[in-house]
Amino acid sequence: MSDHRLFTILDLAGTFAFAISGAVAAKDRGLDWFGVMVIAFAVACGGGVVRDLCIGAVPPTGLTDRRYLAVALVAAWMTIAAGPLVTRLAHPVTLFDSLGLGLFAVTGAQKAMIFGHSAEVAVLLGVVTAVGGGVARDVLLNRVPVILRREIYALAALVGAVIEVAGERLGWMSSWRTWVALTACFALRYLSLRYKWNLPRAPGRNSKSD
Amino acid sequence: MSDHRLFTILDLAGTFAFAISGAVAAKDRGLDWFGVMVIAFAVACGGGVVRDLCIGAVPPTGLTDRRYLAVALVAAWMTIAAGPLVTRLAHPVTLFDSLGLGLFAVTGAQKAMIFGHSAEVAVLLGVVTAVGGGVARDVLLNRVPVILRREIYALAALVGAVIEVAGERLGWMSSWRTWVALTACFALRYLSLRYKWNLPRAPGRNSKSD
Amino acid sequence: MSDHRLFTILDLAGTFAFAISGAVAAKDRGLDWFGVMVIAFAVACGGGVVRDLCIGAVPPTGLTDRRYLAVALVAAWMTIAAGPLVTRLAHPVTLFDSLGLGLFAVTGAQKAMIFGHSAEVAVLLGVVTAVGGGVARDVLLNRVPVILRREIYALAALVGAVIEVAGERLGWMSSWRTWVALTACFALRYLSLRYKWNLPRAPGRNSKSD
Repeated sequence: MSDHRLFTILDLAGTFAFAISGAVAAKDRGLDWFGVMVIAFAVACGGGVVRDLCIGAVPPTGLTDRRYLAVALVAAWMTIAAGPLVTRLAHPVTLFDSLGLGLFAVTGAQKAMIFGHSAEVAVLLGVVTAVGGGVARDVLLNRVPVILRREIYALAALVGAVIEVAGERLGWMSSWRTWVALTACFALRYLSLRYKWNLPRAPGRNSKSD
Repeated sequence: MSDHRLFTILDLAGTFAFAISGAVAAKDRGLDWFGVMVIAFAVACGGGVVRDLCIGAVPPTGLTDRRYLAVALVAAWMTIAAGPLVTRLAHPVTLFDSLGLGLFAVTGAQKAMIFGHSAEVAVLLGVVTAVGGGVARDVLLNRVPVILRREIYALAALVGAVIEVAGERLGWMSSWRTWVALTACFALRYLSLRYKWNLPRAPGRNSKSD
Repeated sequence: MSDHRLFTILDLAGTFAFAISGAVAAKDRGLDWFGVMVIAFAVACGGGVVRDLCIGAVPPTGLTDRRYLAVALVAAWMTIAAGPLVTRLAHPVTLFDSLGLGLFAVTGAQKAMIFGHSAEVAVLLGVVTAVGGGVARDVLLNRVPVILRREIYALAALVGAVIEVAGERLGWMSSWRTWVALTACFALRYLSLRYKWNLPRAPGRNSKSD
């Protein structure tokens, strides 16, 4: 399978994962079905749109390629229609969010490299793509983003993006490095939640202030 | 009147409507007059700036064309100076917000088509232009955006943008389709508030959670 | 010293100031050290990234020039490591925030002029660069931005940007006008906090509503 094809499939899978995550959060917040669809699409494409604006790929793929819209709407519809099923799963938001995080970290870094940018830009935009959707979801739902509350989140995205970019520089096979990067990011994120791994907090004046 | 001229006039009218909406909300929040002006300008131009970044029209018109700044400042000044009058009107935020929603859905879609983008991009950017200002206002004032709380909002923008784009594809006369699209969006939004039309909610785990 | 060199040094200094401000706020909120670094970088580069997207300078300098990342990480590390020292200073967030405000208002306006844009665009993007980081910090930490709560904030940025742009048009020496603009903005902002200068509020319906 060509690089480009693998990239597209992974990107659509990440879109689906984040759309589910956004739709579940929006539904839990009591939104109507149209609001659920809007949030699902915004969360699914938010990170990618910022990435595309930063590398000058306008209009962003999230808007031009109707498969992204279709995937987001299917995810929203599944969440609404099969609600009892989806919500009864343990931590579905968390699971899909972790999956989307890994997928977008990898594909975001890939796209920046395909556009010929440096390793540093590729890593940063991998993190932005991965983190952007979740941040947009939480800002729109008016809460402090999980990136701030759940400790190993952006760090997992960083690990995934670094593996992908370093692998490319070291000449690893494309599909190989993609699966390693994706698995590392997902595993780090998911296990950190499962076993409550935390990074140390800096001793603040008062962590409950403000 | 040429298409371009109609487009400009409607865009400025939408800017004025959203600026009033932003200024009234900022004033209700107790901001000083400079803060009211900043919010009025940010709300009035937020959606259009995102649209222009997405179609590569940089610098965005909201920054280069000083008429937008002038219109936003006049709206803010009117809100401050004629405060008792403006706030005594029933639901002025709602009225102007509905009007701006319709105007920006139409002009946002128009501009994307003028720049040669596909029907799908034009519809999506019409919605983004229309919804962006109100979302920016609510995120800046730290509350869940009306797009999430008031049910028929983005849907009304979608209806307006779809009519505008479909009309263009079907060869309707430019001014004709613009008024139909604008009226449909405004009426749908305003009547839904007046008569409390709602879309069904998806049954969530707990709509008050989080 | 050449204009370009002065511009770079000031821009890095502003980056450092805003990164400290973001790191201190994030630390006070009880985030772990990685979260502190992410917020420090986001706050330091947020305004500049928006400016660069608006003038079509992609990828934004904040992503391509690794000195910005390095400066932000050093600032975050200093805040974490020398925490008791930094937080014991009176109002360190405020001090560094005021300094960053002035530096970014000037360098934001400079960069827009270097790219050949009009005086109006340069002033507006100076304000956006200056205000963007602080707004991003407060939106991410889920509170109403200081731009809305602390009265003379965006106004100080406006004054700095206007002096810089007007000075350039009047043919003032580059370093001269930069220091005047920077000092005016910083002094206005800092003294307004020190002596609690306020702009008058518009009489709202109810300043505590919502």
